[in-house]
Amino acid sequence: MQSKVESIGLDGFYQESELPLLLKHKGMATWKDGTVQILDRRKLPFSQEYILCHTFEEVAIAIEEMVIQGAFSISIAAGYGLALSAQVAGASIKDIYNAASRLKKTRPTGLALSRVLDLCLLRAKNAIKNNLTVADQIIQLTDLIASDLAMQARRTAQYALTLLNDGDTLLTHCFPDRSYVYLLMEAKRKSIKLNIICSETRPYLQGTKLSSWCAAELGFDTYVISDGMGGSLMKRGKIDAFITAADTVCMDGSIANKVGTYQYALAAYANNLPYYVLRQSGPDMENINSDSVIIEERSGADLLHLEGKKFAPDGVLGLYPCFDITPPELVSAIITDRGIFDSNKIKNYFDAKSFLSNQI
Amino acid sequence: MQSKVESIGLDGFYQESELPLLLKHKGMATWKDGTVQILDRRKLPFSQEYILCHTFEEVAIAIEEMVIQGAFSISIAAGYGLALSAQVAGASIKDIYNAASRLKKTRPTGLALSRVLDLCLLRAKNAIKNNLTVADQIIQLTDLIASDLAMQARRTAQYALTLLNDGDTLLTHCFPDRSYVYLLMEAKRKSIKLNIICSETRPYLQGTKLSSWCAAELGFDTYVISDGMGGSLMKRGKIDAFITAADTVCMDGSIANKVGTYQYALAAYANNLPYYVLRQSGPDMENINSDSVIIEERSGADLLHLEGKKFAPDGVLGLYPCFDITPPELVSAIITDRGIFDSNKIKNYFDAKSFLSNQI
Repeated sequence: MQSKVESIGLDGFYQESELPLLLKHKGMATWKDGTVQILDRRKLPFSQEYILCHTFEEVAIAIEEMVIQGAFSISIAAGYGLALSAQVAGASIKDIYNAASRLKKTRPTGLALSRVLDLCLLRAKNAIKNNLTVADQIIQLTDLIASDLAMQARRTAQYALTLLNDGDTLLTHCFPDRSYVYLLMEAKRKSIKLNIICSETRPYLQGTKLSSWCAAELGFDTYVISDGMGGSLMKRGKIDAFITAADTVCMDGSIANKVGTYQYALAAYANNLPYYVLRQSGPDMENINSDSVIIEERSGADLLHLEGKKFAPDGVLGLYPCFDITPPELVSAIITDRGIFDSNKIKNYFDAKSFLSNQI
Repeated sequence: MQSKVESIGLDGFYQESELPLLLKHKGMATWKDGTVQILDRRKLPFSQEYILCHTFEEVAIAIEEMVIQGAFSISIAAGYGLALSAQVAGASIKDIYNAASRLKKTRPTGLALSRVLDLCLLRAKNAIKNNLTVADQIIQLTDLIASDLAMQARRTAQYALTLLNDGDTLLTHCFPDRSYVYLLMEAKRKSIKLNIICSETRPYLQGTKLSSWCAAELGFDTYVISDGMGGSLMKRGKIDAFITAADTVCMDGSIANKVGTYQYALAAYANNLPYYVLRQSGPDMENINSDSVIIEERSGADLLHLEGKKFAPDGVLGLYPCFDITPPELVSAIITDRGIFDSNKIKNYFDAKSFLSNQI
């Protein structure tokens, strides 16, 4: 018999059974019998496969190879990954620190990853001081963080919904992670009709594979477009708001998100449409402005192949800057778990009250 | 033995042998032994295959199915296609008009197609009046038009080159047809180094398959990016000019071109970069402004498949507006065979002297 607690989702509100796969705990990463189980998002939507990682290095590679993506989802995988380093017989605190360094390097653009790993390292030090099992302590903390992140995402979605109108058509780019899926859940629960247009997001097609999937599964009218079409649809009055997540929000309200976001933000601004950022937490204090944001460069080969087949001519190279920067003046609002902020006032987030019991 | 005339390219300057395939006569469409031979651009760059059309309907389908593309290239195919309708035994002028109507409907956005077909119809009427073979007359005219278009394209490229600097990096979108390839030829001939970044142009990838191919074949440093990346690269100072063709130029200087162009034009404007349109001829008098431009909607299914494999979830639809409109204030210059025009002064094209012997 399943306990009542187990049947409630990470967000503490929805039943686990009624959540779309990507909002379930197993839809991200879980600790399972001494390993880390990660849902392979590259295989979605057609195949639900999991990767079992036995070492932190395997988790690092899984993040690098886009088995899991999204600033907050990868943090959870990395937290459990750190526990793998701690359960190795004879692991020293130095070994755990080295594992954290490796995991942080997997995706340099977002800082949620670093923050979660730093919290886990603190917990590890305290565990050693108090003679507690380090791996268990890291797992407990990561479980809590996963739950906090889910509650943040849902709260963010509730704030976002106050900015939208029944019948609105939203343009999304890439997969805006859990806040976006909770936005769909909350809209459905309140019978607010939204139409979702997903920019496919080449080369990995997270828009087609993840964003459109979640929206269609929940019964919304859902369309896929190429990454070149959104601006034109805005100009033709077909879109009411552009909405994305953010891998990093700087203290000045600059946004780093999947490359392509900046162009759409410009087009939204030019057409008097709002661009909303679903952040689900505060800005990254480490980034006063975007000058310190590292734009991850991935392999250009991804632009030269389709489904494993090379279709670009010889002698041609690909470029793949993974993220781009949108300046604060193009961002209408940053939506967080603590409310809706003007982009240039996002640092007020830290003065706003948190509703979370466990600070992350 | 090949005659000297045959060895000179359509442009009257380069030898046919030194032209890249897409600038050769056979790289578009040719009349061949009572049929129309069209290079299948969908198979490029890896395979050089030709489609032989025996009826105007087959030519119409070839245009619709993107065997050939580009506002001017399809006009040539359509001209020869009309000759196919005229060579049918007992074909009346009404039959030829019906064939022209069918061919015009293949791509409603550009008007070069209509213009060429109207010229061919005029020639057909005169042929009947003067007891000449109608098909032969249409073929002769289309040959002349193909040559005129090539000369226009080269002249346009020469004007364009005056706007560029040695070492410039150009962003292209879709395949900007012959003026673009001649721009590369002329730059190479004058030892002007250009770097070419091709936006891949989903879903058909003309950027990767055609634009990058021509540039790499001619020895330029050539890169492919996704359709979401150009704006960000502009903002980061990696691009000196954005350059495209135009399927239609309206009398007020509005541009209709492959969807995605508008977003890039906005980004160029926001980053103080020029957006140059290679038009190779004048505006379409039929379009006073963009209100009368028909935006062709192609099958949304193209957004749901990759290389024949469906990768979008069930219940999701694709949208594929094939073109978008860029307003004149975002266009720095329209480059034609008669010189360089401010977008809002493009109607002066008609006051400028043509260098062509055969008006088209």
